[in-house]
Amino acid sequence: MNAEILAVGTELLLGTTTNTDARDVSLALSELGINVYWHTVVGDNPARLTECLYRAKNRADLIVTTGGLGPTCDDLTKQTIARAFGRELYFDEAAAETIRGWFGAHGRTITENNMRQAWLPEGSTILPNDNGTAPGCLFETDGVIVAMLPGPPRECRVMLRNYLVPWLRERSGETICSHMVRMYGVGESQMEEQLRDLMDGANPTVAPYAKLGECLVRVTAKASSREECELLMTPMVEEVCRRMGEVVYGIDVDSLEERVLQLLLEKGMTIAAAESCTGGLVGQRITSVPGASQAFKGGVVVYTEEAKGRLLGIEQKFIDRHGVVSAAVARKMAKRVRKLLHADLGVGITGWAGPDGDDVGLVFVALAARGECYVRRLQLGRFDRERIRTVAAHSAFDMARRWLTGLDI
Amino acid sequence: MNAEILAVGTELLLGTTTNTDARDVSLALSELGINVYWHTVVGDNPARLTECLYRAKNRADLIVTTGGLGPTCDDLTKQTIARAFGRELYFDEAAAETIRGWFGAHGRTITENNMRQAWLPEGSTILPNDNGTAPGCLFETDGVIVAMLPGPPRECRVMLRNYLVPWLRERSGETICSHMVRMYGVGESQMEEQLRDLMDGANPTVAPYAKLGECLVRVTAKASSREECELLMTPMVEEVCRRMGEVVYGIDVDSLEERVLQLLLEKGMTIAAAESCTGGLVGQRITSVPGASQAFKGGVVVYTEEAKGRLLGIEQKFIDRHGVVSAAVARKMAKRVRKLLHADLGVGITGWAGPDGDDVGLVFVALAARGECYVRRLQLGRFDRERIRTVAAHSAFDMARRWLTGLDI
Repeated sequence: MNAEILAVGTELLLGTTTNTDARDVSLALSELGINVYWHTVVGDNPARLTECLYRAKNRADLIVTTGGLGPTCDDLTKQTIARAFGRELYFDEAAAETIRGWFGAHGRTITENNMRQAWLPEGSTILPNDNGTAPGCLFETDGVIVAMLPGPPRECRVMLRNYLVPWLRERSGETICSHMVRMYGVGESQMEEQLRDLMDGANPTVAPYAKLGECLVRVTAKASSREECELLMTPMVEEVCRRMGEVVYGIDVDSLEERVLQLLLEKGMTIAAAESCTGGLVGQRITSVPGASQAFKGGVVVYTEEAKGRLLGIEQKFIDRHGVVSAAVARKMAKRVRKLLHADLGVGITGWAGPDGDDVGLVFVALAARGECYVRRLQLGRFDRERIRTVAAHSAFDMARRWLTGLDI
Repeated sequence: MNAEILAVGTELLLGTTTNTDARDVSLALSELGINVYWHTVVGDNPARLTECLYRAKNRADLIVTTGGLGPTCDDLTKQTIARAFGRELYFDEAAAETIRGWFGAHGRTITENNMRQAWLPEGSTILPNDNGTAPGCLFETDGVIVAMLPGPPRECRVMLRNYLVPWLRERSGETICSHMVRMYGVGESQMEEQLRDLMDGANPTVAPYAKLGECLVRVTAKASSREECELLMTPMVEEVCRRMGEVVYGIDVDSLEERVLQLLLEKGMTIAAAESCTGGLVGQRITSVPGASQAFKGGVVVYTEEAKGRLLGIEQKFIDRHGVVSAAVARKMAKRVRKLLHADLGVGITGWAGPDGDDVGLVFVALAARGECYVRRLQLGRFDRERIRTVAAHSAFDMARRWLTGLDI
């Protein structure tokens, strides 16, 4: 099955909004084994939208539109689609009831405009909107499926996951499942080299991605049941893990910090962080995972030398002797914050994030445990300020992950 | 002038990458007064790319492509464009020299593949790549301008800003300038209502945007010189500021935290933060602005009650009496961190970020100065964890901004 994704919205063409809906729909369709060959964006303009629809119905089996379902007069996706496919709009009483219910529950006054959203192309299946008022819908005509999703990303994403994907899956009679293997500490090209022959398979498929120091591999299988999918995937996931070895930090986890938190909770251990150039990023990331308070004891942001003295008792003499960006200072930060907060592990990060200075990108990351302390020296001069900080935090979580799983750091 | 933006890259169709380039190019072209009517995305497929190019040249005066300029065999934008427009590729010795220089400077070995990037369509103007090796280029043919930019966002953005936009501006013989007025503490619809009549003007134009609690207005003028643009813009910027009043926090600044840092530096004052539910976000945001060490004294991340005791000396009895999420605890956090780090201002944030619990979204944000302490109670139950934390940090910066400019908090 081939698909085209058609986004409707002048704000996308003005550049004030990013087309994340196209990404979300693409990812979901790819996981279903549907090939997406085109994305198109048009403004709130019926003529150009019609032109796109005629082209799409000649080259795609599935057209997914995003946007233009709202209550204002700019929102003309349903009308334009109905006309292009020779259908009338009808007033859907069930959709209207849902819209009235939403306004009631949110204590807001309903206007006549809002009821426009209950008009749908004849013969549509409704796709409920769990995060808003505009219902989506789909219909089939001449072998083409046309599905309409709302534009706001949180409405689009949830409708996609809860209604469109299950509908497509049921229609295909197939079950599709995937696992994500996540890695840190390997380059994209090296990973691809080690896994190249596995990527030629058709079922399961093996697809690599990379993002800022992290590498990911998605293993996807199609079969008639979840169990059969698992039987197809398990040996492949094992083979990927076997080949990649220690750099694999988790399967089906969202991030390094989530994995570290899992490991800490499993072992009943705790962590604390002393951050200089990352300015609070390590704390912010670990506390972005629900449940962090069980394992994250807290931290100090010691961006200045004065703060390193006041909060951690690191003497100015010591800093002067070693330099504020040094392995010695990183170690001391990690050890002191560990003690201060009675944690099992302490992280210390000091570095030059730039943009100015001779040593921009030089960062020391230390991990202290009872009686041990490790330090990594990073040279990230090729990155900008934001990336230097991101990679420094990645590195701290990776050191903790390796320590917690008994690997060399 | 009408433009079409054509992104080339299978990763966009798979949904593993978001098309931020289209947004960046759209925004830049809109500011130049160029209308963008279409975005299209195709994979690394010469036949489909050619189809798009033929269509684009019939409906656009300017075609901007992004992606497909790299050294691998997937990268076929330049070859396909040359063929579609009946041009040969030639080996550009100056581009080759730049590529060799880049590899030399980064201490990396050059391969034959990399030199493929020096082949350009005949008659091209080179667009230098300040952040990578693949040069961009542009040519004009039959009244259509075709510009090729690289795919990686940081390469695309910088080439756009440094080379394509100046080229387009010079060609049009016009100068286009804009100012951005930024606001916090007003809703989008209220802002639009107060400024609606101003949005009808043609020169300068007034365009509003909104993002998560913040509102922005861009005022853009076209004229034959920068000075004339300023003459057109100044009264409009003043009128926007007059109508919106105290919620305006800055003009041409990037963020609330940047504005707070500016104000602190102007007044020679300092700030420190004690963060519970935001987990380090306030520190991370203020230290994302270069130069923060002059005014940000540091902070503590006191995510647990234990940490509030150990780092700030807040007694368990006090927490039990008031509740850990309370105005009293927020105040104490702000006052204690201010003292601890000898800062002029102290921020304290405590709240329930969820996802579980009865009071999800309840946050107290306190600001302590000498002899005074203010607290805001936020009820953000309609937001998810990430948004609750973002708005809590916004609120802290806004309180500091208001205090520093003598406004009521």
